[in-house]
Amino acid sequence: MATTPLDMATYIPPDSSQPPADFVLRLTVSASIPHHRTPLSPLHFLLRAALIVPDKLALVHPEKGYRFTYSQWAARTLSLTFAINRLPGWKRGEKVAVIAPNTPLILEAHNGILAAGGIIVPINIRNTQAEVRYVLSHAGVRAILVDSEFEHLVPRDPHLDGGKAGVAVIVSHDTGGRAGSIADAYEGFLAEGRRYWEEVQRKELEAVRNLVLPEYAARRDWELIEVTSNEDEACALCYTSGTTGRPKGVLTTHRGSYLAALSNAYESKIDRFSVYLWVLPAFHACGWTYVWAINAAFATHYILRKVDYDVIWHALTHSGVTHYCGAPTVQLAIVHHPDAKKVNVDGRGVVRVAVAASAPTASLLGKMEALGLEPIHVYGLTESYGPLVQRYPDPEWKSLNVDERARLMARQGHGFLAADEARVFKRPEDFDGDWSKVHGPLRPVKRDGKELGEIALRGNLVMLGYFQDAAATSRVMKDNWFMTGDLAVRHPGGEVAILDRGKDLVISGGENVSSLMVEQELAAHPDVLECALIARPHPKWSESGHAFVVLNSCALQREGGYANVKSGAAATARMHESFRAHCKARMSGFAVPQWFEIVDELPKTSTGKVQKNVLRERVKGYDDKQSKL
Amino acid sequence: MATTPLDMATYIPPDSSQPPADFVLRLTVSASIPHHRTPLSPLHFLLRAALIVPDKLALVHPEKGYRFTYSQWAARTLSLTFAINRLPGWKRGEKVAVIAPNTPLILEAHNGILAAGGIIVPINIRNTQAEVRYVLSHAGVRAILVDSEFEHLVPRDPHLDGGKAGVAVIVSHDTGGRAGSIADAYEGFLAEGRRYWEEVQRKELEAVRNLVLPEYAARRDWELIEVTSNEDEACALCYTSGTTGRPKGVLTTHRGSYLAALSNAYESKIDRFSVYLWVLPAFHACGWTYVWAINAAFATHYILRKVDYDVIWHALTHSGVTHYCGAPTVQLAIVHHPDAKKVNVDGRGVVRVAVAASAPTASLLGKMEALGLEPIHVYGLTESYGPLVQRYPDPEWKSLNVDERARLMARQGHGFLAADEARVFKRPEDFDGDWSKVHGPLRPVKRDGKELGEIALRGNLVMLGYFQDAAATSRVMKDNWFMTGDLAVRHPGGEVAILDRGKDLVISGGENVSSLMVEQELAAHPDVLECALIARPHPKWSESGHAFVVLNSCALQREGGYANVKSGAAATARMHESFRAHCKARMSGFAVPQWFEIVDELPKTSTGKVQKNVLRERVKGYDDKQSKL
Repeated sequence: MATTPLDMATYIPPDSSQPPADFVLRLTVSASIPHHRTPLSPLHFLLRAALIVPDKLALVHPEKGYRFTYSQWAARTLSLTFAINRLPGWKRGEKVAVIAPNTPLILEAHNGILAAGGIIVPINIRNTQAEVRYVLSHAGVRAILVDSEFEHLVPRDPHLDGGKAGVAVIVSHDTGGRAGSIADAYEGFLAEGRRYWEEVQRKELEAVRNLVLPEYAARRDWELIEVTSNEDEACALCYTSGTTGRPKGVLTTHRGSYLAALSNAYESKIDRFSVYLWVLPAFHACGWTYVWAINAAFATHYILRKVDYDVIWHALTHSGVTHYCGAPTVQLAIVHHPDAKKVNVDGRGVVRVAVAASAPTASLLGKMEALGLEPIHVYGLTESYGPLVQRYPDPEWKSLNVDERARLMARQGHGFLAADEARVFKRPEDFDGDWSKVHGPLRPVKRDGKELGEIALRGNLVMLGYFQDAAATSRVMKDNWFMTGDLAVRHPGGEVAILDRGKDLVISGGENVSSLMVEQELAAHPDVLECALIARPHPKWSESGHAFVVLNSCALQREGGYANVKSGAAATARMHESFRAHCKARMSGFAVPQWFEIVDELPKTSTGKVQKNVLRERVKGYDDKQSKL
Repeated sequence: MATTPLDMATYIPPDSSQPPADFVLRLTVSASIPHHRTPLSPLHFLLRAALIVPDKLALVHPEKGYRFTYSQWAARTLSLTFAINRLPGWKRGEKVAVIAPNTPLILEAHNGILAAGGIIVPINIRNTQAEVRYVLSHAGVRAILVDSEFEHLVPRDPHLDGGKAGVAVIVSHDTGGRAGSIADAYEGFLAEGRRYWEEVQRKELEAVRNLVLPEYAARRDWELIEVTSNEDEACALCYTSGTTGRPKGVLTTHRGSYLAALSNAYESKIDRFSVYLWVLPAFHACGWTYVWAINAAFATHYILRKVDYDVIWHALTHSGVTHYCGAPTVQLAIVHHPDAKKVNVDGRGVVRVAVAASAPTASLLGKMEALGLEPIHVYGLTESYGPLVQRYPDPEWKSLNVDERARLMARQGHGFLAADEARVFKRPEDFDGDWSKVHGPLRPVKRDGKELGEIALRGNLVMLGYFQDAAATSRVMKDNWFMTGDLAVRHPGGEVAILDRGKDLVISGGENVSSLMVEQELAAHPDVLECALIARPHPKWSESGHAFVVLNSCALQREGGYANVKSGAAATARMHESFRAHCKARMSGFAVPQWFEIVDELPKTSTGKVQKNVLRERVKGYDDKQSKL
């Protein structure tokens, strides 16, 4: 099994990752920064961990058999910082892209690029080369750190450099610099950085000896780096994978990243005894700032390149994992895995799981709870540093059954510790998706769980704006609010509940039908593994819902497999009727889907979201009768 | 028993503390504040709690039989805010003093005064009227909120107002506005504030109806208050009770208070199931920012006016208390109380206790652990928002005995989550206490646990400076570092360990003797309850230590009481020899105190620190022989 760190014992970190004796783990502070105001930056967390718990395991990479303590990792990160600093013509504010799965490389980049005064551009490895080329070119990256498995995504064309000096491409073979391993360009890059760092330091010490600098003025190790003077400076540029149009670059700041990471550490109760399993891609909104939150808590990163459920269950069972994050589709695969059994970390109870994108269904919630996986439903966007809203479970829920708890947990809830209140404002009747055209004041919806509006955010956990896209930024900004595009209601307790993301709302006979609500209810049917609802034109009601359903293993076994279901019209009709009856018992008549369709699987985006645009395309070819059973 | 909230059931909060229907719990944000940057202010925590957990108990006041939910408390605080706003000629930046023991009043003031744009000046109720007069006059307070028990501390002279409009004095009888109680001026003040708030709101709504303001522009409830635009603005002015000279006013900011409160909530693992027992005075450095940290965590304030150990044990045993803070002298009284028994809060284990001023001795540590009180040793000053350094217990300590753990815990350790690294810099040989006279760069001590220097702090958890005392500020500032005056070493792990506060160092025969070290070791003697060491002139060694010792109950019982010990020279000599032998076995010869003196009790300041200046005065009258046994 890959997760057994069999050869870890023989692993010796390379020189570039060895902390020097009396390692100095502090940044130089500009004299212009007043004594009472250190700029907030997530970089502080790594240095603080290396100072206070130098020998604690910062990261474990069992697939590749290597690991670093916080002290080693801080030394390695400084080597990376200097390697970036010595790129020809490098200056503050430049961008470095990272193309990598979950590896030490991408975590290191989230500190090293920032320390060099740069902006990290994490690339979605499930994008096509054309998409990657667009992003690299739009961002104007100065260098690319790429994992060898994804080297094919790096475009080799002159278009990229846009007239500037060439773009440096550094390939990592994810060896951790293991002696005797194949040549690893990234490790060579770090070794160069280390030499440069030591050379600069030696010069400063010589200047002291030659009295050019006064005694004690020489800077050592991390002191060679100056902390940013402006906490509102951008530190990350994450491109959203929009379903329509070009990707947009979300610019976020040092201050926001610091406060978001603190919020995640507090809200998820991460401490120095925690082990965080990297299931969520780190390239996804800087891993929801967990790349820094884990360091803030002195916890351990447990890194897996692949979302392999055998490996995940091995880690959950044997490696003391306490936390992970993921979409419901990932959770489904985890709870239905044959190795699934109740986790109990050294008697310390549950594994805390942040679930985003959509709420866990009652069925999923029940299964997770039975396995000791404690879900917390969160909501956010790349534009909000990942999740910034969560449902606080009420102690009174203990008396409720799992169906009722799932229904309450489906609400997105309230803002994180350092987030401002999430609001919901009405859209004008003639709204066309562009808030810059909307005049007059924003009108909040009633807190009645009914009146529909758009979720709006502001404050420290909201992006600066879209990079070099003032038009796109102005479309989502209104009176200093960031308009998320997600439709929601507010309940009397003030909690926000999303009804639909963007275009997913079904308007049937003039009534608004929440596709999320229908999916949540339909998923409670005993035969259903997962489902998705889209709007489809209807001659009488203008629109009605078309539900795509994936059967669970019990139903498939009963019916003799998917091929059998597909070919057997009678069985299919019986099941459709069962779905319809289930829905009728649980929702208004206008909300019951007109059409059901049993499918083998749902099309999904690289981040696990159902691609409703693909489903919409598919039904365009249907006549009214087809699949209307 | 006063803590049994017998009559809570009959308590109905007054109208000024009743939340209106559809209570709006957000501040108005100036249009000048960009969308991505809400100014950090601890005021947000109360409003957020009232929004998300409106019906959760915010505070319980069992001695007076009243309590408020977060929603009620937010309404009450808004009433206070408006009451302050309508003081004649009130403007932002003015000061309001609070003279009160631990009561709802002082907690409310920490939000209401800030919301009115003012600066809170918490007064030490153990000060004399002359000291209070000095502080009020120096701060230039515009109003005084005073608990009726401490009304005698309010000076009634014209000197106070300094030519400005008169100082408003509002007396609280701590009734919570209970119907049928005696007239309570503070409750009347709140009622006036509530009327004013409702009137302003009504006018805004009328302006909307008359189309003077556009629809939705009218502000309601907390929206009538504008959040500060500048997070670096001062929000508190706490006077230190200096042992020499006039008290100095420590100015701290909204930003610092927010980050310190977050750090305390995270480091102490306070969450919404926590109950915080107010043993530490809230007037002491804003209760180390726990006045806000508890709100940030949605926890409950459990308030006691008096430090009465019967009442404290009742609370620990019966009221679900999970956290408290206090000096070792308070801890001593708690662990030696006849009602002491192991605490176990609903099976949730230990009560977390922050211990400051000096470290728990091995004896105290062992007793606390046996009772389920988990101590964490913290260090800080009023100038650093209370504690900002703590010792992270190492998991490896489990194998150590209590003596060894106490010795490691005596080190002050490392900075809090949002604190910068605490440093130790050498003092110049001719240092006279004034850093403004020191030229040349600061020189850090070696991390060898030996080289002595002064603890220096900077960053977000350090004060702005001393109010209207540029001279005192410049004496403690050097190259943007705040010099604490506390002498310390750094250990190889980077942790700071204080050897002496200010003038407590004993320099014997040219060797530095840490009074804290000697006290820590001497306290491990089986007869010793507590002790204090001071420097006393010595004909041969220039100085040597004089130890004052308080015997514990076992030793007193054995010797037949303190009067007996005092009069019995033989018994005294025997015990002195035993102390001397104990010290000789545990420290260098030059560090062993030359003199021992058994006393009935140690003189202490209002905050529980031993008054070494009093002890120094006392020995001035001694000849060399007296008490030299």
